[in-house]
Amino acid sequence: MNDKKSFHMPVSDFREQGKKMVDWIADYLENVENYPVLSQVKPGEIRAQLPASAPTEGESFDAMMKDVNKIIMPGITHWQSPDFFAFFPSNNSAPSILGEMLASGLGVQGMLWATSPAATELETHVLDWVADMLSLPAQFKSTGTGGGVIQDTASTGTLTAILAAREKKNRFMSNDKGVKNGMVAYVSSQTHSSAEKAIKIVGIGKNNLRKIEVDETFAMKPDALEKQIKTDLDNGLVPFFVCASVGTTSSNAIDPVFSIGEICKKYDLWLHIDAAMAGTAAICPEFRPLLNGIELADSFLFNPHKWMFTNFDCDCFFVADRTILINTLSILPEYLKNKATESGAVFDYRDWHVQLGRKFRALKLWFVIRHYGVEGLQFHIRKHVEMAQTFARWVDESNDFILLNQPPLNLVCFYHKNGNEFNKKLMDTINQEGKLFFSHTVLDERFVLRMCIGQTNTDWRHIETAWTIIRETAKKLSES
Amino acid sequence: MNDKKSFHMPVSDFREQGKKMVDWIADYLENVENYPVLSQVKPGEIRAQLPASAPTEGESFDAMMKDVNKIIMPGITHWQSPDFFAFFPSNNSAPSILGEMLASGLGVQGMLWATSPAATELETHVLDWVADMLSLPAQFKSTGTGGGVIQDTASTGTLTAILAAREKKNRFMSNDKGVKNGMVAYVSSQTHSSAEKAIKIVGIGKNNLRKIEVDETFAMKPDALEKQIKTDLDNGLVPFFVCASVGTTSSNAIDPVFSIGEICKKYDLWLHIDAAMAGTAAICPEFRPLLNGIELADSFLFNPHKWMFTNFDCDCFFVADRTILINTLSILPEYLKNKATESGAVFDYRDWHVQLGRKFRALKLWFVIRHYGVEGLQFHIRKHVEMAQTFARWVDESNDFILLNQPPLNLVCFYHKNGNEFNKKLMDTINQEGKLFFSHTVLDERFVLRMCIGQTNTDWRHIETAWTIIRETAKKLSES
Repeated sequence: MNDKKSFHMPVSDFREQGKKMVDWIADYLENVENYPVLSQVKPGEIRAQLPASAPTEGESFDAMMKDVNKIIMPGITHWQSPDFFAFFPSNNSAPSILGEMLASGLGVQGMLWATSPAATELETHVLDWVADMLSLPAQFKSTGTGGGVIQDTASTGTLTAILAAREKKNRFMSNDKGVKNGMVAYVSSQTHSSAEKAIKIVGIGKNNLRKIEVDETFAMKPDALEKQIKTDLDNGLVPFFVCASVGTTSSNAIDPVFSIGEICKKYDLWLHIDAAMAGTAAICPEFRPLLNGIELADSFLFNPHKWMFTNFDCDCFFVADRTILINTLSILPEYLKNKATESGAVFDYRDWHVQLGRKFRALKLWFVIRHYGVEGLQFHIRKHVEMAQTFARWVDESNDFILLNQPPLNLVCFYHKNGNEFNKKLMDTINQEGKLFFSHTVLDERFVLRMCIGQTNTDWRHIETAWTIIRETAKKLSES
Repeated sequence: MNDKKSFHMPVSDFREQGKKMVDWIADYLENVENYPVLSQVKPGEIRAQLPASAPTEGESFDAMMKDVNKIIMPGITHWQSPDFFAFFPSNNSAPSILGEMLASGLGVQGMLWATSPAATELETHVLDWVADMLSLPAQFKSTGTGGGVIQDTASTGTLTAILAAREKKNRFMSNDKGVKNGMVAYVSSQTHSSAEKAIKIVGIGKNNLRKIEVDETFAMKPDALEKQIKTDLDNGLVPFFVCASVGTTSSNAIDPVFSIGEICKKYDLWLHIDAAMAGTAAICPEFRPLLNGIELADSFLFNPHKWMFTNFDCDCFFVADRTILINTLSILPEYLKNKATESGAVFDYRDWHVQLGRKFRALKLWFVIRHYGVEGLQFHIRKHVEMAQTFARWVDESNDFILLNQPPLNLVCFYHKNGNEFNKKLMDTINQEGKLFFSHTVLDERFVLRMCIGQTNTDWRHIETAWTIIRETAKKLSES
């Protein structure tokens, strides 16, 4: 009854290939800035090189790595390049990669406490650490009324917040009877698109999402918010949810959380804070004021996978009252019942988010925090911010470029005075050349260039080179 | 302007620690069957050993690994043990771990084609391979009208299917105006709880989820389904979605997909097939009939992270008409606009699921398929099924245990004739001893034991020992 051939990779081969892979990754990280940052391939170019069907017989791992080097690598946009300034970063670090390796090797499913108690307890504990690192109010800790959980992305985190808010407002009736007409949610015109996506998903519909106007810093106007809430109430509607952004995606605008929070309290609305990118900065006391007013919030999220050197995916989602969240999302079929759950002494994180299954993601966050220590993380945040502020000064002092606003943190928004078409051409030309990669937004009908400085290995020389390339390319394009 | 100290782990240290981690994982996988399968810790035991706050100064990686061994490992339930028979497996393999390592090292975000073309194109391509491996109809391939995408879990996949179905039925009005009253979805009494969770999430409400009765094999009764649809139509309601399960979680029951599909066509309902566990079996021609009728389906999912040796998370979700899916989930804010997207020549997978950000998960699936080849995967599926059928025969031939039904694949459901309390005690006693770990369900008010045989390294000796332990423990408990 024994196998003739097991087809499995022998453990000795895994040791060999695994060590080669470690060297491959180390070589990659040492050389990443030599690649064109934005992949230069054309649509379909990668697929055209792959065989039409899966192999019948197994292949050697060396053959696969040959294809990685030859076929896959030209199709990579190098998010780990120190010359990556587009979107928001998705930064990474050696301890995080080691944490992901360990989680992959253990291969545990943390859906219930019982299915790996360490996966749940380490996550709860590390998120309490993080709450303290950000000086979050006590209600966001597991030792208070709430607690933290790792979600995959801010999109899912915001969806979770909206669900809890929806159920709280209508006494958990939407879960049973479906959404009633008339529930209304509030964001600003600058809030991330994931809030709109989530409002569609939960059955409320984007027509019931109010996009409140912003001030000259692109931050939500609290008076406009209150006015809209009053209008909606007068019309018999049911306001239930506000998302305040600390660091919008377009321009890092900071909504006035405290004023918004007071309005939420007055009208009994759930306040969710999306600080996906900027939240990490709150570990530095000098940036903590960005979160002032969070004591009025019901939920809060930020992504260590953006700016805290922790591999995607890792979104930290905190809730002030975990009972509401759990009552919103808990379902307990027979096949998941177990003693520990029944005792009530444990968290089952499957009740804290949309998914059932979940990976042991706390390991990488634990490794990152322990490796860097709080002072190491602070050092890098401060350095990124200092580089961005310096870059902003260069822009401001130049003759041809205009700084959109003084950057609150590490995102510099600016544009060339030659107008929208010129800025678009400038960006496309530079990105095509591959020496750096940055992206754009549109603000007040203006095509605005965005340089977000938050990649793990970005140093002074990278931003100096970037600024030189941007100026010289602009000069060339102006003269042509 | 240079760093005095970077706090980053030097690449040379990463090489050293990475190789040690590979050996740690290899040692773990070689020794995993020596651990008690179900963790024996008490609630709070792990946390109590962790310091109350994050370290200010960084620590050595060796210190962290010491804590992994001392504090974390006792809190692990060993999903990768060959003696793990609980729930459904979350199996794993060396090529998959190597794929996760590579994805971690590259650290790319595949939200748009442009943000790493290879991440999108490899995923599209490998999912076309998988469609062919499972002999899915042509419409589920990217070369047809549909295509595949990797989602995190079946929960999210089913949620996605319900959203697309909701929007298709009401001409994309729920996205704008919110869900109208009266939409009705159908599952069986045995469908996975994730469908109910999703119906709550999308704002339809569980009262509008009909749990259709099942036959003696626990499969949905098509005539009962049709009767319920007619009743709902007569009452002015709007039926829109049916989830058919191929391999339910409780007992691996197979819903009659073809008959259900005909009803869906007749009444214009979206048919979603949840084959999270059993889907992998369709790569063997002799098990492909399980999916008969899939040509009538609108969406289909299965989890390589359950039974296809691919690390969690990896759910393969296929849709027959990608336009509906994309129209349901697409939002394109300015900061994500780019040439490739505007050309229409590429897929942007962020429009295929709830999340925006996404990891390069296709690598691990590609490695697994290429390492094993189709014949290697078939070999293991067949062996698991053969072991389960043999185990079922042992149960059937015993005097004290009763086989619930002939297992369609690799899940054996059975119980001791001494009644519910005895079976519960039997399971708890064995699981506490740690030699194996299995779980239970309740069917027809009977406490039923579940042995799912699908762990990567489970071999004949493991199921022989498991059966011996079960019988001997039952004997001991009967006599005490």
